[in-house]
Amino acid sequence: MNFLSDNAGPAHPAVLEALVRANDGYARAYGTDDLTEAARDKLRQVFEAPDARVEFTASGTAANAMLLAELTPPWGTVFATPTAHIEEDECGAIPFMTGGAKITLVDGPDGKMDPAALEAALARYGGPDVHGLARGPVSLTQATEKGTLYTPAEIKAHAQIAHRAGVALHMDGARFANAVAATGASPAELTWRAGVNALSLGATKNGALGLEAMVVFDPDRAPTLARRQMRAGHLLSKHRYLAAQMLAWLDDDLWLDLATRANTACARLAQGLGDKPDVALQYAPAVNIVFADVPVALHRQLQVAGARYTVWAGDPDGPDDAALTIRLVCDWSIDPAAVDRFLALF
Amino acid sequence: MNFLSDNAGPAHPAVLEALVRANDGYARAYGTDDLTEAARDKLRQVFEAPDARVEFTASGTAANAMLLAELTPPWGTVFATPTAHIEEDECGAIPFMTGGAKITLVDGPDGKMDPAALEAALARYGGPDVHGLARGPVSLTQATEKGTLYTPAEIKAHAQIAHRAGVALHMDGARFANAVAATGASPAELTWRAGVNALSLGATKNGALGLEAMVVFDPDRAPTLARRQMRAGHLLSKHRYLAAQMLAWLDDDLWLDLATRANTACARLAQGLGDKPDVALQYAPAVNIVFADVPVALHRQLQVAGARYTVWAGDPDGPDDAALTIRLVCDWSIDPAAVDRFLALF
Amino acid sequence: MNFLSDNAGPAHPAVLEALVRANDGYARAYGTDDLTEAARDKLRQVFEAPDARVEFTASGTAANAMLLAELTPPWGTVFATPTAHIEEDECGAIPFMTGGAKITLVDGPDGKMDPAALEAALARYGGPDVHGLARGPVSLTQATEKGTLYTPAEIKAHAQIAHRAGVALHMDGARFANAVAATGASPAELTWRAGVNALSLGATKNGALGLEAMVVFDPDRAPTLARRQMRAGHLLSKHRYLAAQMLAWLDDDLWLDLATRANTACARLAQGLGDKPDVALQYAPAVNIVFADVPVALHRQLQVAGARYTVWAGDPDGPDDAALTIRLVCDWSIDPAAVDRFLALF
Amino acid sequence: MNFLSDNAGPAHPAVLEALVRANDGYARAYGTDDLTEAARDKLRQVFEAPDARVEFTASGTAANAMLLAELTPPWGTVFATPTAHIEEDECGAIPFMTGGAKITLVDGPDGKMDPAALEAALARYGGPDVHGLARGPVSLTQATEKGTLYTPAEIKAHAQIAHRAGVALHMDGARFANAVAATGASPAELTWRAGVNALSLGATKNGALGLEAMVVFDPDRAPTLARRQMRAGHLLSKHRYLAAQMLAWLDDDLWLDLATRANTACARLAQGLGDKPDVALQYAPAVNIVFADVPVALHRQLQVAGARYTVWAGDPDGPDDAALTIRLVCDWSIDPAAVDRFLALF
Repeated sequence: MNFLSDNAGPAHPAVLEALVRANDGYARAYGTDDLTEAARDKLRQVFEAPDARVEFTASGTAANAMLLAELTPPWGTVFATPTAHIEEDECGAIPFMTGGAKITLVDGPDGKMDPAALEAALARYGGPDVHGLARGPVSLTQATEKGTLYTPAEIKAHAQIAHRAGVALHMDGARFANAVAATGASPAELTWRAGVNALSLGATKNGALGLEAMVVFDPDRAPTLARRQMRAGHLLSKHRYLAAQMLAWLDDDLWLDLATRANTACARLAQGLGDKPDVALQYAPAVNIVFADVPVALHRQLQVAGARYTVWAGDPDGPDDAALTIRLVCDWSIDPAAVDRFLALF
Repeated sequence: MNFLSDNAGPAHPAVLEALVRANDGYARAYGTDDLTEAARDKLRQVFEAPDARVEFTASGTAANAMLLAELTPPWGTVFATPTAHIEEDECGAIPFMTGGAKITLVDGPDGKMDPAALEAALARYGGPDVHGLARGPVSLTQATEKGTLYTPAEIKAHAQIAHRAGVALHMDGARFANAVAATGASPAELTWRAGVNALSLGATKNGALGLEAMVVFDPDRAPTLARRQMRAGHLLSKHRYLAAQMLAWLDDDLWLDLATRANTACARLAQGLGDKPDVALQYAPAVNIVFADVPVALHRQLQVAGARYTVWAGDPDGPDDAALTIRLVCDWSIDPAAVDRFLALF
Repeated sequence: MNFLSDNAGPAHPAVLEALVRANDGYARAYGTDDLTEAARDKLRQVFEAPDARVEFTASGTAANAMLLAELTPPWGTVFATPTAHIEEDECGAIPFMTGGAKITLVDGPDGKMDPAALEAALARYGGPDVHGLARGPVSLTQATEKGTLYTPAEIKAHAQIAHRAGVALHMDGARFANAVAATGASPAELTWRAGVNALSLGATKNGALGLEAMVVFDPDRAPTLARRQMRAGHLLSKHRYLAAQMLAWLDDDLWLDLATRANTACARLAQGLGDKPDVALQYAPAVNIVFADVPVALHRQLQVAGARYTVWAGDPDGPDDAALTIRLVCDWSIDPAAVDRFLALF
Repeated sequence: MNFLSDNAGPAHPAVLEALVRANDGYARAYGTDDLTEAARDKLRQVFEAPDARVEFTASGTAANAMLLAELTPPWGTVFATPTAHIEEDECGAIPFMTGGAKITLVDGPDGKMDPAALEAALARYGGPDVHGLARGPVSLTQATEKGTLYTPAEIKAHAQIAHRAGVALHMDGARFANAVAATGASPAELTWRAGVNALSLGATKNGALGLEAMVVFDPDRAPTLARRQMRAGHLLSKHRYLAAQMLAWLDDDLWLDLATRANTACARLAQGLGDKPDVALQYAPAVNIVFADVPVALHRQLQVAGARYTVWAGDPDGPDDAALTIRLVCDWSIDPAAVDRFLALF
């Protein structure tokens, strides 16, 4: 009954088997090997983007920060939601990697960015007056940290606003696979066809050991990505082990299969929780994350029974009837029976 | 006949098997899991340093840069040899990660830093005058990029100079295993007992997939390493796959066994080359790297026969009798028969 | 009728005369001259702070950014109001100079920071989890950008919150002279006695040519200020011309006399505006800045008559009866008759 | 008898008088005022460069660092001599302001950069391999820190090498006025006609209070200079006081008159020193700096007599007959009689 995070789960065995297969003889280092080139090509096919620039690294924080650094001047501001990973969880990676850029927070309902609020925020920057910051890219998280989704039409709306303002649209796709699996839209429809210029595509939370792709649909927007990657220590030498993970992850749509498992388990979980009298769901979960309000007494009972999840808000040492918000994440490996066992605890 | 680099070789099967074993169930993320703690402990035992701070990451460039960033102020200068990896091969990682520190070059014979030159270099910095830079750490590479070694006594001499000048001694140990295997000195004797304050310990070139440890023998010198690691995107989420590599690599002295294989193959190679009339060795190779001067005509012949190595200096398109310097590196997996086949080409 | 900004006004003649007097013979450079030492001492006397560290530079943006860089780690966050100069007007100077720190916005009524909001904001940072940012200093602006003031008791409240949270209290005193003149509190009461740890003291807006002092009441909090100043190009060589300005500015309380003139003119302006039927004052102006809501038609009329001020919000090309917010600033040199002429335009 | 530095001397009275004249009424801030525009125009005329971009600031370190930051990527290297101010005296301003760029040292005789050495140094960088640094600009100092000069033909040679390598030529002109006065070449001949792309033009050492101009002959090379200036705190608010200095300094060729005075005094000094049996000049001084070798005993005698200069090398507490290298700088205000008094001490 572990709902702590999808990065607490294991890698898929097929990914490990690919590592073993790749572990044969010599290969050129730093991403110049054939396997890496094959993985790049495979991703370009999956995204129907033959000209995309594709680079691999082991950290999602790094992928986000390096792409955003290509897309913003050091005196620019990125636009993101208050719950975005780049704002909440990366210990200042964005100002560090960009050389000083700020994140301007643009809120909206359901953990998503409101287009009108984005338009207003963009209007506050980018004037000729050098006292203010320059405009930098808009960064959407798909799926969001709240477990919700942007439709292709919604992404297109943000892209149009961003592009009219002269800036790029970045997508933090740490859970992009879950979004593809949930919407049934194609990778292309959810990205460049909707106006996304660069994607951080995460595999780590969905079956890989440590693997993120930076996919730049318009390579002119990231001309110095390789040097940036090198000097930040994010160009790994034995790249074949990144490439092997990626090929196995994409092969036979394993990535979507795994994401579907996680989403399905979460849907089961959410439905079960929704039926409990003491529990209130905060968002309609579209992927593999659900937020629920529960009384402290119930939380204690769940802990004692061995359930693991994150207390998001509230005081777990508060009175029995005080409300806690808890976050539960289903990873690809979760056993549906464990979900049922968890639901039976209520 | 691949002598390009030890990062072109494969991982050892035992390391991969450890990944498979580690791939079971849930584990806490970001280095808080039990396996990571076990790997830290194991390293502390190997180094006889129970209080050392140990952190893991996937890139040697990152490990060097983050440790040096803890050891120097942004307006300081690191002291390193002209052939050091941090100077030659990291695309500005040091000024980037430190927030502006410089590398002052201190040369010496055999690819090693000369103690008197170090003393002179240190004397040029660190005065009260704010126009000059502050002193930062001394960084030795063990084994050096030239395939030579510092003895414990030599390290001690550098440490004394550094410490008298008020700065730390850092060791870039990308090939530290080769140094231990070659000298027979213990890990402790080659590091903290000789005055080393912080070590970047590389496993990637010697049987791992992508794994470096940062070992800080005096943790007070690196109080903010964790935040630095996080914001640079070098705190990987699924840490168990780093820890598993490390445990397998250290287990039963596998790391030293692999390094010995590489060193032995290189000794065989060097001895063979030394006997060739057309070839001059540049340094007495102590570990797994050898530099040789060969005429262009011979180089062409070797290439045609399928040998792979790096042309370090000279023009491979020059006249037949012009001299080239080539670098040959033996990795742990090299087949002694391949060395012999290569030598038979001359 | 120029109400654009107090940095649009001239320097006081006595300040220029001091420059002429200082322009005699040789003086040591980079702040090691006798005049600079005298200016430091004079400031220490004025602030009753004999141990304060005092440095001079020509830019208020630089003074703020360098002090805050001493007070925050690069992965920390400064806490300031949404209208603070460091947030709105310095083009990213804070993340640049600090090496990546963020500004967390803490709002409150009257352009001032609300203590409870500050407490809540501090609580969101500084935990042991390295994903979040470390806590950095709280920065109050005195007088605020809205022309309001913190009382010594209010400052003390903020200082206690900051210190309990383990961080320093910085004061942006671009208009500190106006605050002293308006409150009658002593410089010490408005700073270190109330818990302020470091002050950016601006003279530029109040009679100097270009002069800011960094006053650190607890020098241990800013141990590397001098190197930081040097490498940022903010340690001017001919320091005597900064020192001469400061001595003249402080002499015979000229600084307070000038600030009083500006405050008095603004009070006259505000009172006059308050009597106009079409005009609504936004804040009760305590110093030399007033914000007023006026209809567009009136604004056009004022412009035609030659009045100069800043349109803060609203569309000056909008319909006649639409509301504009305008900002009017009185500098020390303003002629009370010009204020009356302006008021007569309504 | 003060030969410490030209920044120890006073400003010229005409420069101060210009400040007094400029101190009248209101002026727009941050460089948008009429006087600043006039100063820009005047400089464009003096340099016969009607399209040059011209910005002013108070610090030469800042002017150098900001221009170089426009001309190099953060992962690039600037090329400069070992005695360049940017290498020796700016406490890491270059890596700080550029976001990480390195300075590669290129030596040569007489404190000047050797063209062949420059060509060799450039060849070591800029390849497609991302491990190495990108090429950044070449920075020449004119006049050099050793008091020597580049002829227009020499500058042209460096410019051709730089441009062929795809990088810009920057000139640190802290003593550019002295170079113009000494060579008789026009400002244009010594800069853009010889291929210089950007000039840091120093007035501070030659009669101003604190004033440097950044002159970019090809404005496309410095597209973000203004934002860079703002966020570094180097866009001063009351710009009229920079502009007034510049106009007075250029007016009636005052700048060249002052430089000629300094150069002439230094020539008199060098000739006198050259005649002394105990003294050896290190370089043929072309401008206002002379380096001389003197025995320690003589140095002591000079000190006792009240002479002030800088001991550049050697131990002033050494034995009487040990050699010291001393540096003597003549500023514009130096009294020729003081030079004679000094020479009479030998």
